[in-house]
Amino acid sequence: MSLEIIKEKVAQSIDILKEKNIDMWVTFVRETKVTKDPIMDITVGDHSTWQSAFIVNKDGETTAIVGDMELENFVKSGVYKNLIGYTKSFKEPFVEYVKKKNPQTIAINYSTNSVLADGMTHGMYILLMEYLKGTGYENKIVSAEEIISALRGRKSDKELTIMQEAVDETLKIFDKVTEFIKPGVTEKNIADYVLKITREKGFGLAWDEETCPAVFTGPNPAGPHSGPTDRKVEKGHMINMDFGIKYKDYCSDLQRTWYVLKDGETKAPLAAQKGFNIIRDAIQKVANAIKPGVTGVEMDDIARNYIVENGYPEYPHGLGHQVGKEVHDGGAGLFPRWEKYGNAPFLKLEERQVFTIEPRLPVEGYGVSTLEEEVYLTKTGCKFISKPQKELILIKS
Amino acid sequence: MSLEIIKEKVAQSIDILKEKNIDMWVTFVRETKVTKDPIMDITVGDHSTWQSAFIVNKDGETTAIVGDMELENFVKSGVYKNLIGYTKSFKEPFVEYVKKKNPQTIAINYSTNSVLADGMTHGMYILLMEYLKGTGYENKIVSAEEIISALRGRKSDKELTIMQEAVDETLKIFDKVTEFIKPGVTEKNIADYVLKITREKGFGLAWDEETCPAVFTGPNPAGPHSGPTDRKVEKGHMINMDFGIKYKDYCSDLQRTWYVLKDGETKAPLAAQKGFNIIRDAIQKVANAIKPGVTGVEMDDIARNYIVENGYPEYPHGLGHQVGKEVHDGGAGLFPRWEKYGNAPFLKLEERQVFTIEPRLPVEGYGVSTLEEEVYLTKTGCKFISKPQKELILIKS
Repeated sequence: MSLEIIKEKVAQSIDILKEKNIDMWVTFVRETKVTKDPIMDITVGDHSTWQSAFIVNKDGETTAIVGDMELENFVKSGVYKNLIGYTKSFKEPFVEYVKKKNPQTIAINYSTNSVLADGMTHGMYILLMEYLKGTGYENKIVSAEEIISALRGRKSDKELTIMQEAVDETLKIFDKVTEFIKPGVTEKNIADYVLKITREKGFGLAWDEETCPAVFTGPNPAGPHSGPTDRKVEKGHMINMDFGIKYKDYCSDLQRTWYVLKDGETKAPLAAQKGFNIIRDAIQKVANAIKPGVTGVEMDDIARNYIVENGYPEYPHGLGHQVGKEVHDGGAGLFPRWEKYGNAPFLKLEERQVFTIEPRLPVEGYGVSTLEEEVYLTKTGCKFISKPQKELILIKS
Repeated sequence: MSLEIIKEKVAQSIDILKEKNIDMWVTFVRETKVTKDPIMDITVGDHSTWQSAFIVNKDGETTAIVGDMELENFVKSGVYKNLIGYTKSFKEPFVEYVKKKNPQTIAINYSTNSVLADGMTHGMYILLMEYLKGTGYENKIVSAEEIISALRGRKSDKELTIMQEAVDETLKIFDKVTEFIKPGVTEKNIADYVLKITREKGFGLAWDEETCPAVFTGPNPAGPHSGPTDRKVEKGHMINMDFGIKYKDYCSDLQRTWYVLKDGETKAPLAAQKGFNIIRDAIQKVANAIKPGVTGVEMDDIARNYIVENGYPEYPHGLGHQVGKEVHDGGAGLFPRWEKYGNAPFLKLEERQVFTIEPRLPVEGYGVSTLEEEVYLTKTGCKFISKPQKELILIKS
């Protein structure tokens, strides 16, 4: 399956080069077991020890220039049609190839905005420039950010099918957690239970085990990037969990919120219910507005303003991010206009991108209200991949 | 143990800054779960999501500037004494800190020569330069290659102890393989057996399972970077295995050669024995010559010339590399003067560096003769970490 998708993505990248009118896209790497350009998972699927170039051309030609010792691996995988091996000098066959193709633009993998498009190290950049020095091609270099963001963002049908399955499987695990939660169990107990089920099912984790799942119970819990603690679930707590799996190489990323009824309660207290409703409705407002052509910051504004207007503090992070092979994937994000997000809040969203929507707010005395749904963009709007949580889940103890 | 070594290495880096007279060393990263600067394992030991700087100063001050949400993790680990958190802008506290310290040189992690010193992406380099623009400090940037190579190369007593244990444990596994080899077993059978023992002992692998172990039997086997195949061991084969474990976060990397006696043979045929002897003696010649102050290319010359003078083709790779947390570690290597090795063949070797010595040659009609030993450099020479293989191991079937 994986190799099939890699071939599909390389073919898709040729279309993107045509669309963006870029002649040649070069992924230039070495010792990728030590520092790996993240695009390797999408367009190569193998390691390189010596200096290697994986080249896609607008004219449809795909070429790999790799060390002789590794040539055989690339022959086997068959992703690149044209294979050039070398023993002592990478520069020679590479420069010769570039001259032969005579590209007017050469995209390489650097970006100040997107970590996923920034796979080339600075040393490799210097090397590449040395190799091209005096050929004229050193002046034709552009960033591959747009290519990579489009390639990662625009999910094929095959990719969407896998991502739907990943979310369905994850929600089944959340359902199990609903049965597991009761007063006295700790955040760590819940996390261990989730990890046990996940392992039994043979799934990976979407991010590090330390915070996957992240579980928070009761008022004033640890911050959003913290791991589960020994804090115990008590009656009157709001509980939430942030969790995702890695399934057939693709990630899911979801959050749910529960409330543990106190003795005699048949529903959540007003404050908890209101906190939940505001988050649920913020997500629906964004889902109603999101579509190809809008920007992420507009979406973040919708949720952030709605939450602040209702008297809650703004969440200390972005509203949502793309999901794919990486749990934080693609270029554009549903982010506020904060410096650290670079241009990601301002890029126009595209069809077939998958986003999380994950606002949060604290409910004084009870805990945190936070949901995280996944949607993918259709031609005119979005569809939920996750079945959105519409009601606060009540735990009767 | 790991956190203890990280603190030891950060302290060591202060001494190296003094020795090299560099005022400030900045490791500038973001989203290190996606692209990780390899120095993070040595000097940080944790992940960062937002833009973060880990700063060591010649005056002994250590400072981390990290996103607020992750501050707690770094407080816990206690490696950096001075912790600065931020929510929206990294630039502000970073530039303020640099101005306060007023360094005359700022080393950052890029290198055309060493992948391990080249952890900064080109996009992050551009960002850093933007942040420092107009402050004057953008002109004080130097490569941290020398710092990182020294830091990774010069093993502490604690590190050497662990690496000795790693080699001892690996050689025990090689001994098991000697008992396992017999005609009819395949390269894959041998590899599976090694993986089973390794897992039972709870060790990791020094490199990817696909080629760890790499097993080669008989004449004209696959190239040195290939995985084990279904080829069967036969009487009259030379067999070799390239294998290393990951033990307490440190790698081993060793090779051994066996010969399977034919019916009626009591010793290896002359050609196989000669091929073995040449490799064994090449290693000893290098071990006699290697010491602080010599260069790797001189060492490679010794073995390469000796092998070629004896009528064999030169090996299609370097003679040896440093070992440490990474299986290919440090800056200097025992490499030939080939372009792709950059300056690594020409750096002077230093005390406390650990090198493999691993020449190879083909023996027509029998297989490959190749050994890989590990040595560490003392003040005046070297000591073997591995007990060197002095005799071709004969398998009686």
